[in-house]
Amino acid sequence: MHVAILGATGYSGTVLYGLLSQHPNVESINLYGHEGGKGSRFFDNEVPAFSTHLPILPFNPAEIMSHNDLLFCATPAGVTKNLVAPFIEADFPVIDLSGDFRLKDPLIYKKWYNKEAAPSSLLSKSSYGLTEFPEKNTTKYIANPGCYATATLLGLAPLAIEHMIDPNSIIVDAKSGVSGAGKKLSTTSQYNFINENAWLYKMNKHQHIPEIMQKLREWDSKIPAIQFSTTLIPVTRGIMSTIYLKPIKHYTNDEILTSFHKHYDNAPFVRFKENYLPAIKEVTGSNYCDIGVNYNPVTNTITIVSVIDNLMKGAAGQAVQNFNLFWNLTPTSGLPLLPVFP
Amino acid sequence: MHVAILGATGYSGTVLYGLLSQHPNVESINLYGHEGGKGSRFFDNEVPAFSTHLPILPFNPAEIMSHNDLLFCATPAGVTKNLVAPFIEADFPVIDLSGDFRLKDPLIYKKWYNKEAAPSSLLSKSSYGLTEFPEKNTTKYIANPGCYATATLLGLAPLAIEHMIDPNSIIVDAKSGVSGAGKKLSTTSQYNFINENAWLYKMNKHQHIPEIMQKLREWDSKIPAIQFSTTLIPVTRGIMSTIYLKPIKHYTNDEILTSFHKHYDNAPFVRFKENYLPAIKEVTGSNYCDIGVNYNPVTNTITIVSVIDNLMKGAAGQAVQNFNLFWNLTPTSGLPLLPVFP
Amino acid sequence: MHVAILGATGYSGTVLYGLLSQHPNVESINLYGHEGGKGSRFFDNEVPAFSTHLPILPFNPAEIMSHNDLLFCATPAGVTKNLVAPFIEADFPVIDLSGDFRLKDPLIYKKWYNKEAAPSSLLSKSSYGLTEFPEKNTTKYIANPGCYATATLLGLAPLAIEHMIDPNSIIVDAKSGVSGAGKKLSTTSQYNFINENAWLYKMNKHQHIPEIMQKLREWDSKIPAIQFSTTLIPVTRGIMSTIYLKPIKHYTNDEILTSFHKHYDNAPFVRFKENYLPAIKEVTGSNYCDIGVNYNPVTNTITIVSVIDNLMKGAAGQAVQNFNLFWNLTPTSGLPLLPVFP
Amino acid sequence: MHVAILGATGYSGTVLYGLLSQHPNVESINLYGHEGGKGSRFFDNEVPAFSTHLPILPFNPAEIMSHNDLLFCATPAGVTKNLVAPFIEADFPVIDLSGDFRLKDPLIYKKWYNKEAAPSSLLSKSSYGLTEFPEKNTTKYIANPGCYATATLLGLAPLAIEHMIDPNSIIVDAKSGVSGAGKKLSTTSQYNFINENAWLYKMNKHQHIPEIMQKLREWDSKIPAIQFSTTLIPVTRGIMSTIYLKPIKHYTNDEILTSFHKHYDNAPFVRFKENYLPAIKEVTGSNYCDIGVNYNPVTNTITIVSVIDNLMKGAAGQAVQNFNLFWNLTPTSGLPLLPVFP
Repeated sequence: MHVAILGATGYSGTVLYGLLSQHPNVESINLYGHEGGKGSRFFDNEVPAFSTHLPILPFNPAEIMSHNDLLFCATPAGVTKNLVAPFIEADFPVIDLSGDFRLKDPLIYKKWYNKEAAPSSLLSKSSYGLTEFPEKNTTKYIANPGCYATATLLGLAPLAIEHMIDPNSIIVDAKSGVSGAGKKLSTTSQYNFINENAWLYKMNKHQHIPEIMQKLREWDSKIPAIQFSTTLIPVTRGIMSTIYLKPIKHYTNDEILTSFHKHYDNAPFVRFKENYLPAIKEVTGSNYCDIGVNYNPVTNTITIVSVIDNLMKGAAGQAVQNFNLFWNLTPTSGLPLLPVFP
Repeated sequence: MHVAILGATGYSGTVLYGLLSQHPNVESINLYGHEGGKGSRFFDNEVPAFSTHLPILPFNPAEIMSHNDLLFCATPAGVTKNLVAPFIEADFPVIDLSGDFRLKDPLIYKKWYNKEAAPSSLLSKSSYGLTEFPEKNTTKYIANPGCYATATLLGLAPLAIEHMIDPNSIIVDAKSGVSGAGKKLSTTSQYNFINENAWLYKMNKHQHIPEIMQKLREWDSKIPAIQFSTTLIPVTRGIMSTIYLKPIKHYTNDEILTSFHKHYDNAPFVRFKENYLPAIKEVTGSNYCDIGVNYNPVTNTITIVSVIDNLMKGAAGQAVQNFNLFWNLTPTSGLPLLPVFP
Repeated sequence: MHVAILGATGYSGTVLYGLLSQHPNVESINLYGHEGGKGSRFFDNEVPAFSTHLPILPFNPAEIMSHNDLLFCATPAGVTKNLVAPFIEADFPVIDLSGDFRLKDPLIYKKWYNKEAAPSSLLSKSSYGLTEFPEKNTTKYIANPGCYATATLLGLAPLAIEHMIDPNSIIVDAKSGVSGAGKKLSTTSQYNFINENAWLYKMNKHQHIPEIMQKLREWDSKIPAIQFSTTLIPVTRGIMSTIYLKPIKHYTNDEILTSFHKHYDNAPFVRFKENYLPAIKEVTGSNYCDIGVNYNPVTNTITIVSVIDNLMKGAAGQAVQNFNLFWNLTPTSGLPLLPVFP
Repeated sequence: MHVAILGATGYSGTVLYGLLSQHPNVESINLYGHEGGKGSRFFDNEVPAFSTHLPILPFNPAEIMSHNDLLFCATPAGVTKNLVAPFIEADFPVIDLSGDFRLKDPLIYKKWYNKEAAPSSLLSKSSYGLTEFPEKNTTKYIANPGCYATATLLGLAPLAIEHMIDPNSIIVDAKSGVSGAGKKLSTTSQYNFINENAWLYKMNKHQHIPEIMQKLREWDSKIPAIQFSTTLIPVTRGIMSTIYLKPIKHYTNDEILTSFHKHYDNAPFVRFKENYLPAIKEVTGSNYCDIGVNYNPVTNTITIVSVIDNLMKGAAGQAVQNFNLFWNLTPTSGLPLLPVFP
């Protein structure tokens, strides 16, 4: 298989390149840049950690489609939507790591991203690729989920699908490492800002909120909204989504556990742990989402802890998993089966 | 004034020593150790960062009382209660940084600390010294509040005192630095464990829960319980207590802000910030508790963010503040007025 | 005393403001900004950690001189030299934290800073203010030393002054925290770059090399050059300068220790430690320079470890120490006497 | 192939298990524990990050040899030597990650490890397995090199082998992450100690010094000693060995570069970089040793920067590389070809 990456020098694109370059079903990788006019660029100049002297070719849809079997877009939200029309129109397979095609409703996109959405005609040809819960009619354009959305939705899925949640009760306190903000310079990504710090940002404004709601309502249409906060913590990789909710009626502890086992016992990249709350570092470098759950009878509250590596299961890893699903490959192909620990 | 510190080589004791040694009303500091039989010990041998060649004297209540005006106990919970009876009986002033005299009910102490409580006759002579909301009849034995309790109670106080909270709605997601666990060796305080990690621990079992409930019920007796979680994050100092709750009825944003201004505009060490959520690093090294608040009409949820330096406002700083209150000194004496930033 | 700070919103300026605001001899602080046309600026808007609602006034030499007794310049190298001529000409006291007036020779400045130097007529009115070894004829314009230069020169001073060093043998391997690079955005100050990393930068090109050489040659004119490297490590504050050198002839261990005692036993902010190599964290938040020394007979090599907080003894702390020296105040006025530990 | 790991729950053993479990030539892995009497132990209980429910079997040499083709010892120095005699006597293949069989001379072992050495009869059957420079007559007992030794020796090898080094000039300033100290609890591995710190430890006493000297003298017998320091820095994984030396005569820059190219252009896991000094993070998670070099004509000093991941190239990765060499497998089998970045 020949694959193309657009935007390989960002964090997600770099990790994606790393995975694909060791994927048994990938014969060649071609890199493309969406920013023209920079002269000849090479991957290893921009990512010295990788010793790959591969050219970054100018963006040219026709050429990309003639030399590759699939395109990964690791371009930022707002950029992707301006580039991919030719691929969608040609029904060429695309896995899009950006947020541009995740929301079905262009008005909601505009409200949360503060940008014009892609045209509805294109949006309708995209499917939301949460790997454990894919859409029924998967299209050739797969919108790879956001990192917070992945951790939160996988944590909520069993109880939501089984309609066990009091619809007005969900509060999510998510913690994230700094790589989630991407490679571009920003004050809050500076070492001196975030080291020895914790900072709650984008209060009620994070663009993953509507993405979570869209999928959650598919599972349980009675859920009107969630309270969702994101706190930046001083780690490079990792998300912990701590989810608090009340059950819609009384359940035994076994009933709660059973709902998780039912949905995850056959999922190769979800490790549901009984009587154990997972820590971020237990998944770093892997494509796992580890989930633990606790019920507190005193407050009638269920706490779910869901952890992922935001660049793996939250971005490049899930993209490779979507790639494997799309071509019917072994689900775990090209993905490390153990975290980098310690 | 001559003051004694019992347990100065732990983290709280060390920071306390640092503050008192530069306090304008403190003439001398005498250090005592509760562990006998170690031969001659000197402070700078055990805390090389401090260049103070001060002996650590053996614990002797009579001698402590004859040479000092007040005793600070920076001993661990479970240790303090076995040492302080002579001081309480002699009505000698004590500020106790441990958890042994915070809970009025010995059965609750036993349940959460898994140890026998101090006798009721002694417990009744202690007062809980949350500096901004002290007990009416302050005794000479002041139980200095716990770090999580301080951050959480100061965040909740205005709305609780004004009876603005839906009693069943409080969820607290607290994040803490590693120094909160003290100086003793433990697996989860090892660098390789907590660096690049986040870990939710003591689920529903943290001993600060009953401490928070005891004070909260004084303010609003209708609150039956809170859901309270503690997540260890890779910072040395600092607590962020993120508090989610629903208002008992609709309030305007101004009404919410007003309740905070009412209680804190004259508090020298609480900085209430309008339209701003504080970050941990903005208080590190200082005795401030910074508080921000947000109301989300979509979910009808109030989010309060309260940050402190756990070794300062959460331990030694508040102890000095209690010391100043006790002797009617300038409230800010001996306390740094600005954080160590960056 | 009324003092002015130019450039208080950078890291050095912020720390300087924090120190001066608690300095017993400072009555008022006025802040000035060198970048005009920004409308009304307030300190607490740009440094939320500090709750000081102080205006940042436009730069106006005449006004600064009429309202203040001394000016601190916390402006970047290359900026200061264009602003300070009026003060030097008026013989108004200035303490300059930038590198613009440290090098006596304008050609050397130009070579290492890659910028035009201040005119020689102004340079000649500056004195290099290494507080423990000030110039004999101190002027009213004090060039506060650089952070690496301070740590390295204080480590080398005793053996250099006593002519005990083989002149061709000095190798310095300095490690620095990220705040040394200042507040401006840069790739290598990003959290994701430097966290979990170490990076040797500016190989043989660091602008503190000529500053060290200039002072070192005053002490021992036979030293032709030093090999000096700087490695960025993931800490916010702190420099460790590890110095390797060979003695010019055989010395006993006692002779080596004696040279350090001779020069530092009366220095309030140098803590020379026998048989102990200090760690960065033992000085963080303080104005101390801690020094340890080791002689290895197998390799005939003396290793000196010198640690400072780069924003304190390496910048703002030493500036306050220079301020105290200049006005003949108590040397330790306004400076914390203990580090922030842990 | 069936392989055994003794001591898989330590850091090196855990990483080794992770590599071998994804190695194409390894059919099964059996885990053994050297500490008896602990009842039934399972790997995932002790390393929750790994989801492998594998028993840790009691140590039994006969059984190990009958069920496996090779034994990896990831046991601590001082422990291995007491366990491996049966394997050496039976000429059973062993790769030993501990320091017990690296030093040929038992007196030197005793001096630096402060323990009795293994008997000479056993020591003589071991070969030092620096993968790029193996011993000529490799035995079936391979002593896998230490982490500092690997980084330092690979940095020094080309110039040492080519006799280009002034024998009395070598100074090594090595920086290491905390995982190098292993999993056991210690004060200096505590987060609160090493976070925001740097600490030079074991001055002139590090046990890797004689290991480096032994190999270095094979290459250039004129080198009498090296000055070698180790500084702990707050990263989990990684070593940077900064090596300073003087050339024995004048060389052009090209001659210096050529010596590195000659020895490393065909080494799959050494990336020699011209005009570039590598950073630790560029090799984390990989088996690479990245090397850069600089010549300073002003001081006539060559600086070499050599970086590795101490748990990979410095331990488990090199052990797998030795495994591949031993069985004549593809040199890169089972080893990730790119670092985990960012």
